[in-house]
Order: sequence, then structure tokens, then C-alpha cells
Amino acid sequence: MLGLFFDGLKLSLRSDLPVPVPQPGEVLVRVLSAGICETDLQLIRGYMGFRGILGHEFVGIAEAGRFAGQRVVGEINCSCHRCPTCLAGLPNHCPTRTVIGILGHDGAFAEYIAVPERNLHAVPAAVTNDQAIFVEPLAAAFQIPAQIPDLAGRKIIVLGDGRLGQLCAPVLQHSGASVLVVGKHERKLSLLVRQGIQTLLRSAAQPDRSADVVVDCTGSETGIADACQWLRPRGTLVLKTTVAGNPAISWAPIVIDELSVVGSRCGPFPPAIAALEQRSIDVTPLIESRYPLSAAIQAFDEVQQGSSLKAILQIAAE
Amino acid sequence: MLGLFFDGLKLSLRSDLPVPVPQPGEVLVRVLSAGICETDLQLIRGYMGFRGILGHEFVGIAEAGRFAGQRVVGEINCSCHRCPTCLAGLPNHCPTRTVIGILGHDGAFAEYIAVPERNLHAVPAAVTNDQAIFVEPLAAAFQIPAQIPDLAGRKIIVLGDGRLGQLCAPVLQHSGASVLVVGKHERKLSLLVRQGIQTLLRSAAQPDRSADVVVDCTGSETGIADACQWLRPRGTLVLKTTVAGNPAISWAPIVIDELSVVGSRCGPFPPAIAALEQRSIDVTPLIESRYPLSAAIQAFDEVQQGSSLKAILQIAAE
Repeated sequence: MLGLFFDGLKLSLRSDLPVPVPQPGEVLVRVLSAGICETDLQLIRGYMGFRGILGHEFVGIAEAGRFAGQRVVGEINCSCHRCPTCLAGLPNHCPTRTVIGILGHDGAFAEYIAVPERNLHAVPAAVTNDQAIFVEPLAAAFQIPAQIPDLAGRKIIVLGDGRLGQLCAPVLQHSGASVLVVGKHERKLSLLVRQGIQTLLRSAAQPDRSADVVVDCTGSETGIADACQWLRPRGTLVLKTTVAGNPAISWAPIVIDELSVVGSRCGPFPPAIAALEQRSIDVTPLIESRYPLSAAIQAFDEVQQGSSLKAILQIAAE
Repeated sequence: MLGLFFDGLKLSLRSDLPVPVPQPGEVLVRVLSAGICETDLQLIRGYMGFRGILGHEFVGIAEAGRFAGQRVVGEINCSCHRCPTCLAGLPNHCPTRTVIGILGHDGAFAEYIAVPERNLHAVPAAVTNDQAIFVEPLAAAFQIPAQIPDLAGRKIIVLGDGRLGQLCAPVLQHSGASVLVVGKHERKLSLLVRQGIQTLLRSAAQPDRSADVVVDCTGSETGIADACQWLRPRGTLVLKTTVAGNPAISWAPIVIDELSVVGSRCGPFPPAIAALEQRSIDVTPLIESRYPLSAAIQAFDEVQQGSSLKAILQIAAE
């Protein structure tokens, strides 16, 4: 089959890849389209030491199992469901997990992918393929209200106007919070303004230590330091992105202001699917480029130049 | 009056210091004795830019007000009690606060100190002066159960066998948690063993990512990295001490393991006083040296050499 393969050093488009053989509990999914994520860019720079087929935001048609013939999206953590961590209700933290397109499990930038059947969710008819690609990152945004209840009425600053900030802001606003997005790009901030979300250019921002919650979606060292300037004492910093390496950042404000810092990763699919089905969150303006799988190398080149909020690889027709 | 003065560069014992004039709401306290704290050592290295009389762990006799003639201890944050932060119930985070012996308010290494009357707590007859000096740091230990409820049955690792670890461990054990202290000093760990607390030398420890909560009392860069090795996914790291400067530490485990990090500072006095009165926590074995105020310079020299868990300045007889 055709697929985009990363050998640990470089990406190559290969037509000789074997169709994956589903392992026990897995089903084969014929991929329709897939999104390129910031994590993919990190993976090809060596993050996680990944080798194989990239891609973890996808929609496809299940070839077998209880969803056979239906459009599906898939959760990316493939867990044992037997160890103490899984049995404690934290399968996304299973110590022996693989992660689709990220860790020890081939991903979706190919014609076929094997996915644990229990990871699949049916895509409602009202959700387009373009929208379905956003279920995985939108679920990550819904992890914030899952981890931090009672957001209604809270003053929340989202730092970063990139792909993840664009999804977290409307999710938080729909949770009843008062949301302000601080970013560096007028063009990206304007997409949020159109959804009725308040925005501010970072260069014009005056952090005032008044936010109840700051969500760091910057992927940059500046995010954590900025957050400490925005947060009130006892406020909460949600880390949605991480910073490579060992950044030199002061930890003192966390103690002095008794801040809470909460790491936040993958999230629940059902509220993300429901938000897309009910059209309460509009993700399609984020799609700024589209490529056939045969142009995947070009797609990565252009996404790495940072011009596109979300690029989609169209892999097959329904 | 006699007192230990820090001019921003060096400590000096001075007999010409003026007796403080109580400001509105303050009362004069005749100091009986005071403890030297790790924070004092940081202050004379330049932390907070403090200048004045050091000392924030003290017991004395109130000279006026509703506690006149009684032994008292005092909370160290002197807050306005009128600003939004104070009115939100967080006076310890008042943006215009002074802090006794730490920030803009002379401390207790002197014959007299002025303290806001509302900061004072009477010392019960059953609590000795030696014990009363521990009310302030013990209250900081009681801040942990105040911030993190439901500690009963939790597996907690306390990192650090110094002054603060010695107080946090029994407080957490009395909260019903299963406590293990990991430290570098057999002598200090043995004091904890005598209280029935489990201990482990750091050199013999095998972090196993199983702790529900890790309390970092090390004041060292290694503490945070060690903590991430001990914590289970979704575990909580309580920062009781901070690290100077901008240490180069990876933040990635916080996101990947969805850890929570909670800064923890000053705490509630009533449970600390009650624990001492009921003798549920024995602090006196921590007192390893005593000096008259006239030997305060020598006391600091010896405490800086790190030999003593707690050194006390005896300032006056009752």
C-alpha cells in the first residue's frame, strides 16, 4: 500500500508498504483522510524515537468488527486493559501502551491502519470527514474541563493562537468560562474573534495576575513564564503543550503564589464528537491546505514553514 | 535593644536598635526565643533583598491587646485585609503584604517585635517555648492536608530529611497516609524511624512510579526530577521548597503523565498548635543547638555548616 514512512532520519513516500495485519482485538480501517499535527513535526525531529508510519488524526471506514462499513475515528492510546494502571481507570497511562503514529504503532498516513476495536467511535452522519479529523485534537481540548471542573464563570487565558489554542478556546468558552486568547498572529486571532472569543496580541498584552486558569498552548518556553504573570495567587496553569529539553525556567512563582500546574494530554472522544455533530464548535476554518497522500512530503514541507493552521492529507474517497 | 541586623551584605549584632513602635493594629511582643530557618540562610544570601532584623519563628509575651501578658506565636504574613485578594480569603497572598523577618517587616531575632494583633495565637500551657517555635514551620506542613484533601490511605513520598521533611512526614502520617521519607542522612532519617515513619536512603532508593503524592522538601534541583520518577500517572507533586534561579529541568513528564504540581507555602496555625498540645507530633528531638541572642552570629555560622536540624536563639527568660 501507499504510505508516508519515517525511518528515524527522513520521511519517504513508499508504495511497497504491507497492509497491516490486525492483531487480536484490532480491526483494519481504510483511511479516508488524516490531519498533520504539531506532534508529527516533533516526531520527525526525533521526539520519541519513532520509526514507522506517522499520523494519529484520522477518519476511515472500518473493514470489520461492530463498526464494519461505517465511518470511524480512533483513540490513539492502545492499552493492555489488564495492568494496575488500566484497572485504576487510567488506560491512557498504561505503562506498556503503544500510541498510534507516535509510539510503537503505525499510524494513519497510509491507505490502511490497524486499530484496537475498543478505540473506535462511529462518526455521525452530520459530521463531515474534514470535521472528523479534528475529533482527536478536540478531545484533547475537552480533557481540560474533564480535569478541572467548575470552569463556569472562571477567567481563563489561553496562551497561543495555533492549532491547539484554536480548539481549547471555544471548548472553554462553551464551558461557561470567560476566555481571552493571547497570541502572536493577527490572522489566527481573527479566526477566534469570528467565533466571539476575545483576543489580544501578545505584544499589546499587560499581564495582571488576575486569571483563575491559564492554558499554555504555546509549545514555547515563554508560555510558562507568561502564565505566571497572568495567574492570580492559587491559580491553575494547564500545560497542554510541552517544551523540548530542559528549559531554564524559575519554579519559585509556583511556590510563592501557591499555583497549581496540571499536565493535560489526550481527552474523551464523546464530547468532541457531540460538539461537532451539534455544530457548537466550528473547526473547518482551521483547514488551510489539502494534499493527496502522494504529495505528503510537500505537505510536511509546507506545514513546517508554519503557514497553515491545519493541513489535511486526503487519502481515499468513500 | 539588642538584635541581629542584616544590612543587605552582612549580619551584625547591634545593641542600639530602637524598640519597634507598633503600627495601628499591631502589638509589641517581648521575644522569648526564636528558631533559625532555612529561609533565614537564603535571606542572608540575598533572597528577597531583605534588610533589617531577621527571624520569623518565635514565641514571646504580648505586651498589650487581648493577649496582654500571655505567651503568643504569630503568623508571619501582614496583610491589608481590604484588597480583592484578602477579601477572596487569601490574605497570605495579599499583594501589599509584608512578611515578618522576610519582606519589609522586622523580625524576631531581637528583644522586641511588633506583630499585627490579628496574627497572634495564644500558646497553651502544655506547649513549651521550645515547641512553640515550631508552630510556624509545622503550620506550613499542615498546609499540605489543607490543600490536598483525602490523604488517608494515599502513598506519599517525602523527599528530604531536613527541617521541613521532619515536620511534613509526621503531619502526613497523622493524616492517615502511608509515608516514606527519602533522604541523604542516616542520622536525620533515624529521628523519623523513632516516630514510626518509614525511611530510605536516597542512594538505596529505586523510584517505581507508584506514589500518589510526592512532597519535595529538598530545596534542590534533584527533588523535582526525583519526584517525577516516584509519581504514578496523574500523581501530585507538592512543592514545599523552591530552587534558586532558573534550574534546567524537563517539564515533559508533567504533561505526559498528567501530573499535578502544587505550590505550598504558609499554613494554618490552629492544627499545628493542637498537635503540639496533644503531643501527637514530637518536635523537640529536632533541636540540636541553642545559643543566647548575644551568640547569634556564631549560631548562623554553625547552622550554615549544616550540622544542626534546628538551632534556637534564647532571647529572654519568662
